[in-house]
Amino acid sequence: MNKKYEVIAEKITLWISNSSYGPGDRLPSIRVLSARMDASITTVVTALRLLESRGLVHGRDRAGYFVTQSGAETGLDPADTSSDSPGLRKQRESRDHLKLTLRHDQAILLSSTTPVESYLPTRQIQKSLLRASRRALDSLSYSFPGDALYLRAIEQRMTKLGIKSASSEIIATGGAQEALALALRAVTREGDTVAVFVPSSPGILQSISALNLNIEEIPCDSDGRPNLNIMERALANPAIKALCLSANVSNPTGYTMTDQDKIQMLRIANGKGIPVIEDDVFGDLHWDANRPLPLKAFDEMNSVIYCSSFSKTISPGLRSGWILPGKFYAQVSDEKYSFNFSSPAVTQMAVADYLQSRAHDLYLRKVRSIYQNNLSRLREFVMSEFPEGTTCSDPNGGFTLWVRLPGNIDTTKLYPVAQEAGFCYAPGQLFSMRGEFSNCLRISGVRPIDDEFERGMAFLASTFARTM
Amino acid sequence: MNKKYEVIAEKITLWISNSSYGPGDRLPSIRVLSARMDASITTVVTALRLLESRGLVHGRDRAGYFVTQSGAETGLDPADTSSDSPGLRKQRESRDHLKLTLRHDQAILLSSTTPVESYLPTRQIQKSLLRASRRALDSLSYSFPGDALYLRAIEQRMTKLGIKSASSEIIATGGAQEALALALRAVTREGDTVAVFVPSSPGILQSISALNLNIEEIPCDSDGRPNLNIMERALANPAIKALCLSANVSNPTGYTMTDQDKIQMLRIANGKGIPVIEDDVFGDLHWDANRPLPLKAFDEMNSVIYCSSFSKTISPGLRSGWILPGKFYAQVSDEKYSFNFSSPAVTQMAVADYLQSRAHDLYLRKVRSIYQNNLSRLREFVMSEFPEGTTCSDPNGGFTLWVRLPGNIDTTKLYPVAQEAGFCYAPGQLFSMRGEFSNCLRISGVRPIDDEFERGMAFLASTFARTM
Repeated sequence: MNKKYEVIAEKITLWISNSSYGPGDRLPSIRVLSARMDASITTVVTALRLLESRGLVHGRDRAGYFVTQSGAETGLDPADTSSDSPGLRKQRESRDHLKLTLRHDQAILLSSTTPVESYLPTRQIQKSLLRASRRALDSLSYSFPGDALYLRAIEQRMTKLGIKSASSEIIATGGAQEALALALRAVTREGDTVAVFVPSSPGILQSISALNLNIEEIPCDSDGRPNLNIMERALANPAIKALCLSANVSNPTGYTMTDQDKIQMLRIANGKGIPVIEDDVFGDLHWDANRPLPLKAFDEMNSVIYCSSFSKTISPGLRSGWILPGKFYAQVSDEKYSFNFSSPAVTQMAVADYLQSRAHDLYLRKVRSIYQNNLSRLREFVMSEFPEGTTCSDPNGGFTLWVRLPGNIDTTKLYPVAQEAGFCYAPGQLFSMRGEFSNCLRISGVRPIDDEFERGMAFLASTFARTM
Repeated sequence: MNKKYEVIAEKITLWISNSSYGPGDRLPSIRVLSARMDASITTVVTALRLLESRGLVHGRDRAGYFVTQSGAETGLDPADTSSDSPGLRKQRESRDHLKLTLRHDQAILLSSTTPVESYLPTRQIQKSLLRASRRALDSLSYSFPGDALYLRAIEQRMTKLGIKSASSEIIATGGAQEALALALRAVTREGDTVAVFVPSSPGILQSISALNLNIEEIPCDSDGRPNLNIMERALANPAIKALCLSANVSNPTGYTMTDQDKIQMLRIANGKGIPVIEDDVFGDLHWDANRPLPLKAFDEMNSVIYCSSFSKTISPGLRSGWILPGKFYAQVSDEKYSFNFSSPAVTQMAVADYLQSRAHDLYLRKVRSIYQNNLSRLREFVMSEFPEGTTCSDPNGGFTLWVRLPGNIDTTKLYPVAQEAGFCYAPGQLFSMRGEFSNCLRISGVRPIDDEFERGMAFLASTFARTM
């Protein structure tokens, strides 16, 4: 019986022999192949290396795998894309940056910040989905800009967060990712620049790059606090058309801005006429009894575009997001209408049904303390077992730890070593477009800290120590 | 109790007084307001005219309604967008063209080509949705590039249509509209040109415009047959990066290309290296026993991107589409991954479950003859009651009729008159970006031809006759 990587290699060989992919064509990224073939990244990479040894494909550093052209292939300059327009070249460079470090871990963008099923209210939301499915006429109809009950449920949650809004100002989206994309498309054009704070969520970096926008990176202080002085100077750049960030339980540092900083940030951004796109997906996972207010709650100019979803707190698979575009409602609703018109009604109805009970707030209380305990244990381990000189974030929300190793330990280089041992972390270089944070890593407490987890942490600790 | 238009006018007034919309801001389009406030277009327009009479808003021809600036507003040049970049100005112009004629009929893009619920297999798909909802673990998980059973069901349908594909080459999308948007983003950049045949589906025109692409319009013969000679000359334009069309049961003419024309079209497009994006949403509604083959079935270079959905034949609300990107799989999967990652699994599972039974083919046979009868009756009425010199398409599939009135009868100008009487048709100007087809209209047989329908047709006939 063939090993899995051999099966995969055969499939790809078949594609090439039946011209599904021709000479010079780029194969799908390793991440995508892994999803399609239900195999780990390691297995896919092994298959590709096998094909490379056979001369069928060749990997271009930072650019992916390509079907071999007839004739000599070696020595091709990976930057040899001279026939591309400047814009296309820039896009490819920014995407490849992310892929370089992403391709060795399918899990980074997904499971690392996707809670395991046992940490989600699975049974309750399934009951709600069943109830929603029984209401055929509603669940099978179009729902632009969203199912009425869903929008109203979100309106109620927004009101509790100090955001004055009506359900008529909310649009349902396929997750927060889609909300972000719609927001970016509404306020920018190709070639514009968007400002972010680094270390930044890789998803935000990817969404911005995918739209052929430039990224201006503004540093945070060591605890993750956005540096507003540097931001003010940076926003003088007229090419910047938007600021994009998470103000609460930011990914990866877990940092939550103070109310004063939020007010100050908006004052500066509004002074320059720059809209702020807020991604609040982790906001409900703050551990305090008082959930921190979003930027939108301080938004007197209606210039904050609020994006969020229930992917981290109810179910990622239902794709239940929403956007409050403020004064940009017209542009955002146009973008939604043009792109895919509406999101399915039945999934929205399921979420609305679930939120009607008191179950969700009870669930949140329970899961917050689980994450708090997980991170407490992880932090303890890191500070005691990782190489001396290691520093670590000290969040009060969410489920991620941001760890900075001493000296020149390169977490990108060490990543395959960890992966071989079966343990996935997110290398620091994912959190910036400029190769920064090469001695940093993000660890997530989205699953129970069991023996296997602890073995993995111990392996990491020794791997890092050996490199010093 | 206030009339509905007064209630709407009050709401908009409130938005203005609480600065949700400031001086000079554009209000949401009438289409969007109508959806948000659950009111007809006529009611919304009445409300806006009321506010206009009060000086609170003003309508700019072809551009929408705007909050009045302090000081004189009259005489503002609707083309006064000199601060916009050239690209932005072009985008606004092309979108406004569509809105000009769209804003008086919310129904044009929706119900005119959306079958009524009684024409869809509603009960069966609802049972399938319930069954899918019971499978919690699957229905709540991520599904990129799509639910396995859904992709396999589509693969089987594709194979029957002569398209050699594996489910690993198919990506699930939120409707055909999203598939089109992903295809366009994968093969074009802002400022590129896409070639279409006119009269063209308004949805295709809108998708292309929304991405800031230019449109090259190639005429069809009087029966709707795409003119391949003109196409060949037009494709010499190096700015054209894609061709986008429906080869079967095209909207609005209902025309289906011959196999020879399909082969010839691909030969020409491939010769110039231009990919073809195919929208096959109406293909299953051809009345013949033998369903016509898609362009993709003749696609030897793997350069056709096939887009479709079940919106016209199972349920529009489930947003169940798919795309076969051929050699562009890498680019399209990247676009999907970046934009909203995946579509919900549960709706895909419902469609897969429904397709497992033999019900769908029985349903299609039944509904095809319903549409055939409806169009036969409509055609008879048009040819006997509309002004002399009227010509009409003679389709053999779908549910739309394309009618050309004699002389200078302007169907855009007459639209509000018809709308007042409660009857919606689609004015010909919607089907091109250049103001063509002003004496044409599309009528749809997506609902039973009852007395009300016949009264509406009679009203139209007399309205058109009076104008001559």
